[in-house]
Amino acid sequence: MTSSARAADAGADQLPAMFQRYRADIADALRGGLSLGEIPVYDMLRYYMGWVDSDGNPCEATQGKALRPTLCLFGCEAVGGSAGSALPAAVALEFIHNFSLVHDDIQDEDETRHHRLTLWAAWDVPRALQAGNVLRVVADRALERLLDGGMDYGQAVGIARMLTGAYLDMIEGQWLDISYEGRRDIAIDDYMVMISKKTGALIRCSLDMGVAIGTTDEAAIRAFRSFGRSVGYAFQIRDDSLGVWGEEETTGKPVGADIRRKKNSLPIVYTMARADGADRRELERVYGKEGLDDGDVSLVLDVMERVDARGYSQRLAERHCASALDAVAGVEMAATVREEIEELVQFLLVRER
Amino acid sequence: MTSSARAADAGADQLPAMFQRYRADIADALRGGLSLGEIPVYDMLRYYMGWVDSDGNPCEATQGKALRPTLCLFGCEAVGGSAGSALPAAVALEFIHNFSLVHDDIQDEDETRHHRLTLWAAWDVPRALQAGNVLRVVADRALERLLDGGMDYGQAVGIARMLTGAYLDMIEGQWLDISYEGRRDIAIDDYMVMISKKTGALIRCSLDMGVAIGTTDEAAIRAFRSFGRSVGYAFQIRDDSLGVWGEEETTGKPVGADIRRKKNSLPIVYTMARADGADRRELERVYGKEGLDDGDVSLVLDVMERVDARGYSQRLAERHCASALDAVAGVEMAATVREEIEELVQFLLVRER
Repeated sequence: MTSSARAADAGADQLPAMFQRYRADIADALRGGLSLGEIPVYDMLRYYMGWVDSDGNPCEATQGKALRPTLCLFGCEAVGGSAGSALPAAVALEFIHNFSLVHDDIQDEDETRHHRLTLWAAWDVPRALQAGNVLRVVADRALERLLDGGMDYGQAVGIARMLTGAYLDMIEGQWLDISYEGRRDIAIDDYMVMISKKTGALIRCSLDMGVAIGTTDEAAIRAFRSFGRSVGYAFQIRDDSLGVWGEEETTGKPVGADIRRKKNSLPIVYTMARADGADRRELERVYGKEGLDDGDVSLVLDVMERVDARGYSQRLAERHCASALDAVAGVEMAATVREEIEELVQFLLVRER
Repeated sequence: MTSSARAADAGADQLPAMFQRYRADIADALRGGLSLGEIPVYDMLRYYMGWVDSDGNPCEATQGKALRPTLCLFGCEAVGGSAGSALPAAVALEFIHNFSLVHDDIQDEDETRHHRLTLWAAWDVPRALQAGNVLRVVADRALERLLDGGMDYGQAVGIARMLTGAYLDMIEGQWLDISYEGRRDIAIDDYMVMISKKTGALIRCSLDMGVAIGTTDEAAIRAFRSFGRSVGYAFQIRDDSLGVWGEEETTGKPVGADIRRKKNSLPIVYTMARADGADRRELERVYGKEGLDDGDVSLVLDVMERVDARGYSQRLAERHCASALDAVAGVEMAATVREEIEELVQFLLVRER
């Protein structure tokens, strides 16, 4: 994409209004959730959330999108519930998500995320490991606040089970992802199974929890579950594209970052499956190397262009977005809610970060 | 201790009858809890629990004492409850304990435990990290089975909160422990605070959960809470002694292991506080070194002998055991129950593993 085309797209890349609407409430609840104790681990966690620098001084680091809590609150409102009643579930999701990132950073030996040092890089592995575990407890505690809102114990336990179930799926997905490392024969179906667990589970769960808090209508619950599944795919597919073709300025990673890491993301899985002849041999040679240099990365990018891996990824994401819209087509909802759903889905297709 | 003195003590070192009584039920429930999914992580966890070798074949590795689940079931019975009703809590405790060990092994870079490779050493850090996280979920799931036994949701949530609370304390203790590393000025009071969280919290919680499941009598609940606090201290103090003077054959660690690791355990904290003159200077010199050799270890052992660190540790453990017995002196219970409590407390003082 040329830079003028990017400029023209700038509007579509803006976060949909729902993100803005819930932002302050989510931020407040997150801060409240991170005040369980006084040991320095909480400073590390506030740093990781982007609220303070590594010395504990308030700062204005880039915040995440808060996709999962936003989906949770929106799901609740979309089916007629009040967003406030789902807030404990929303923040629990964001904490669980960040907990998994803290451990992922250790696992992948990633030294930066969102242009900042990760916890193990800024402190050390033992402290980062514990900080992640604390965040997991913080998530549990945040979820318990559903009871303060008057939810009965039975329903609260049911909601908690949804979260642990999604979390187990997520680990299973991470496990698959690890087991794919170094392999060059991952089928697209294998990849889809992996992302439906690794990323999809928590995104689905965000909508599931919000919707279950907002309504008891089984048809709506089923429709949004299916919506969430498609949204999860679309989100990760776009993420994989950004991991290869995203601009460093917006993604925090250099172009080709996921190629250099030999990550089995969609563009490479697709390219491996499609490339033949000399291209295939070159890919085999490059991926057989210990470390990839700039020349290798641009060679892989060239092959990706020849098989149109970028176009393929985008079309696949579009297909999942269309399925998402179909899934909720039969659910009765206000016109404004449907417009927001369309805006969300459109955003997932064009987002640059 | 001479080997004949050890032989004479062999009887006292036997696990008290309560461990034998609950062993089969605990083992069955643990195995049941570890069948949530089919990904290889469950094989890793079965390996860690000592049920299979690293290829997944059944084996007879040394099992742990199952101290925490045993205390939980015993606590429940001691106040008139049925041990079976506390079984979900008991296994959740054992899973949480093992989860923390899996992560501790990573953190401390320990390659063996109970004479077997640890998970990160037998597999790798990413897989071990995830396996630990799965075990944490397994614990949550195990605890949910309290509901299957007919416990009402409110009480089950209360019990779950006890466990998360203890777990938060445990992390806080691990945190303190990390922050003490490399320091040579830890006061005995600091040490006591650290162990009361790091080890004590989960041991206290084992009794608290069992007792809360077995009775609603507030006086008994308070008495056992105090009992649990003292038992936790006695357990860790003895553990620290075994870490310095325990035989490799029974502890799985060479004599002086904790000296070599420069661990701030009770014998060294006490010795640092007591040694003066040439002894103090020698300690400073040895602990200032990067790595300790056999000569350094035996020098430290000599200083420990001069300040009678071993006698001090044992007397402190005895004092906590006496407090434990005092705590429950006023609780009405069958004579056989009180005998078992005495047997348990005696065991904590003389155990060799």
